[in-house]
Amino acid sequence: MAQSANAVRLSGTVRVVGAGLLGSSIGLALTSQGVDVVLAGSSPTTLKLAVDLGAGRLARADDDPRVIVVCAPPDVTADVIARELADFPDAVVTDVASVKLEIFNDLVARGVDLTNYIGSHPLAGREKGGAISAQGDLFVGRPWVICRDEETPAWALSLVEDLAADLGAVVIEMGPDEHDAAVALVSHVPQVISSLLAKQLESASDNAISLAGQGVRDTTRIAASAPELWIQILSANAENVVGVLESFRGDLDAMIQALTDVDAAGARTTIMTELAAGNSGVSRLPGKHGSKRTYASITVLVDDKPGQIARLLTEVGELGINLEDMRLEHVEGAQMGLVEFTVLPEVVARAVSELDARGWRVHQ
Amino acid sequence: MAQSANAVRLSGTVRVVGAGLLGSSIGLALTSQGVDVVLAGSSPTTLKLAVDLGAGRLARADDDPRVIVVCAPPDVTADVIARELADFPDAVVTDVASVKLEIFNDLVARGVDLTNYIGSHPLAGREKGGAISAQGDLFVGRPWVICRDEETPAWALSLVEDLAADLGAVVIEMGPDEHDAAVALVSHVPQVISSLLAKQLESASDNAISLAGQGVRDTTRIAASAPELWIQILSANAENVVGVLESFRGDLDAMIQALTDVDAAGARTTIMTELAAGNSGVSRLPGKHGSKRTYASITVLVDDKPGQIARLLTEVGELGINLEDMRLEHVEGAQMGLVEFTVLPEVVARAVSELDARGWRVHQ
Repeated sequence: MAQSANAVRLSGTVRVVGAGLLGSSIGLALTSQGVDVVLAGSSPTTLKLAVDLGAGRLARADDDPRVIVVCAPPDVTADVIARELADFPDAVVTDVASVKLEIFNDLVARGVDLTNYIGSHPLAGREKGGAISAQGDLFVGRPWVICRDEETPAWALSLVEDLAADLGAVVIEMGPDEHDAAVALVSHVPQVISSLLAKQLESASDNAISLAGQGVRDTTRIAASAPELWIQILSANAENVVGVLESFRGDLDAMIQALTDVDAAGARTTIMTELAAGNSGVSRLPGKHGSKRTYASITVLVDDKPGQIARLLTEVGELGINLEDMRLEHVEGAQMGLVEFTVLPEVVARAVSELDARGWRVHQ
Repeated sequence: MAQSANAVRLSGTVRVVGAGLLGSSIGLALTSQGVDVVLAGSSPTTLKLAVDLGAGRLARADDDPRVIVVCAPPDVTADVIARELADFPDAVVTDVASVKLEIFNDLVARGVDLTNYIGSHPLAGREKGGAISAQGDLFVGRPWVICRDEETPAWALSLVEDLAADLGAVVIEMGPDEHDAAVALVSHVPQVISSLLAKQLESASDNAISLAGQGVRDTTRIAASAPELWIQILSANAENVVGVLESFRGDLDAMIQALTDVDAAGARTTIMTELAAGNSGVSRLPGKHGSKRTYASITVLVDDKPGQIARLLTEVGELGINLEDMRLEHVEGAQMGLVEFTVLPEVVARAVSELDARGWRVHQ
């Protein structure tokens, strides 16, 4: 794994409370690096499974954890944090819930001393939950948001940073309110919009569905996410989500009005302005490795049988062309596929000519 | 190419009016199959380029085309169709514009005899336009909508079907109103929604953008499309687009209201219902080759350097595993990538164990 090249930073015992997907993944990653991981939680069955998987050992009375990671379900996270802070006053306590302010406010309202608490949100997950889906590399390269405040002691912050680093994650510091506003914008609202868009397909005719291309597939892909999970997330971050949804609705209203009478004064300007703003919005999303540089793409038509794409990729490797990204698109009704490579712009001309010379059907 | 295995169906001369991306691609595909293609259009420069590219020959006074394909810009398509019908009364005339009813109504309003006219819409295109971007295989496996009416003679219909077949496309028959409603739903509205969602990112903080994951990328990908093209499409199909957008807005309003007071009676039911409807809407989209069967995915962690993915694909090919789909996702901040394979469910167990045995870091 990537982090095995570096020495592990944490020492002492890490206590993980809740052995689901995130808790077990943390346990697996740390245990594999020799860290002593103690697993606790309300479900003996889950704990046993996590221990069997190698995610850690069961808690003992004499455990003296330095770091505690609360990986409980969102609706009991504040409870568990308060209890852990009381039980282990010398440890730093963090959690992994995906909405932060509600938990923080809940703890403040209880009068809990939060000196040793630092909220976390690792942006990692899978469609499938539970210890059985745990992966030691779940956090590698993923953002790990840390929400500390002015009172957080340096030693506590440094321990949570070490935890994230040992898991291979990339630390980003944010306040809980900034964090919640950010995930509303880049995660929660896209989920809502994708679901509502996909809903419009529910009653579509088979003929209409037969015209569906890559655009509608991409825009509705995350609409397949689990409603049971998302109602919790959306409810806990409702105010931020509503704020962005209302801004979206303002734009939607303007678009509907402009399209209702496209010959009205200003209508075409509105449509162009909204579409152009979409261009500039999407251009803010980073490419590979978070860089903002632009890439070019080339497309190769391949026969749809085992080995063809491998042969293509082998030759791309032989040519020393580094792929920034790659997509395979099937051609419906034909036994062939389109492989779209994203490469650095300066590589395009050579890639096209060399692949063409090797007999590939390549298009820029 | 796929169609080279079959005999060409068209005989005689095909006249293509407008030598941009679609016209030149049609010309390239037919010429390569030995069909006599005549290119016409208002721009001598474009025509010369298309001829140079091998898309056909220039028109002569004694041409006697059996099929005419109008590939002019949408706003002059009706004009050109009317003129071609008058100039070549023995030919069938079709067009490739992406919105059909407005053109049909325009022709009816002019009193043109439409017996020999059949509207088409091949669902194919590229981000880049012009003859220079033409591809003979642009239509392979793509849907080709044919809008005929009761008066369309069988010989004319059969010629347009032959055209689509020779280009490798899959014919779908629809009325112009049904077609326009369908593309509003599966193409035009997803474009608008994606643009409006991407617009919300315009003023996002860099911190917020740093938390962006695959979900927001997928939902906003098509927001990068050209506003100049889309304002034409949306304007020509405004009524259908507004209809779907208003249905979407109804759902959006319900979601905003429910999230504004999640503890109100019925609020949680509304949120769950909307999200579940999104599940069932997206499940209508077909998978590979238009089938509706489900697939499973496995993920392999690879080092991010040339040759790694090729080696993986080579071994996948050696194992005889057919990939239904594949995506490469880069892990930000780390020199590694996640390769996600979509495979038939019955292949998963073997693929995981064999790849694991070969030393790959594979996850189900």
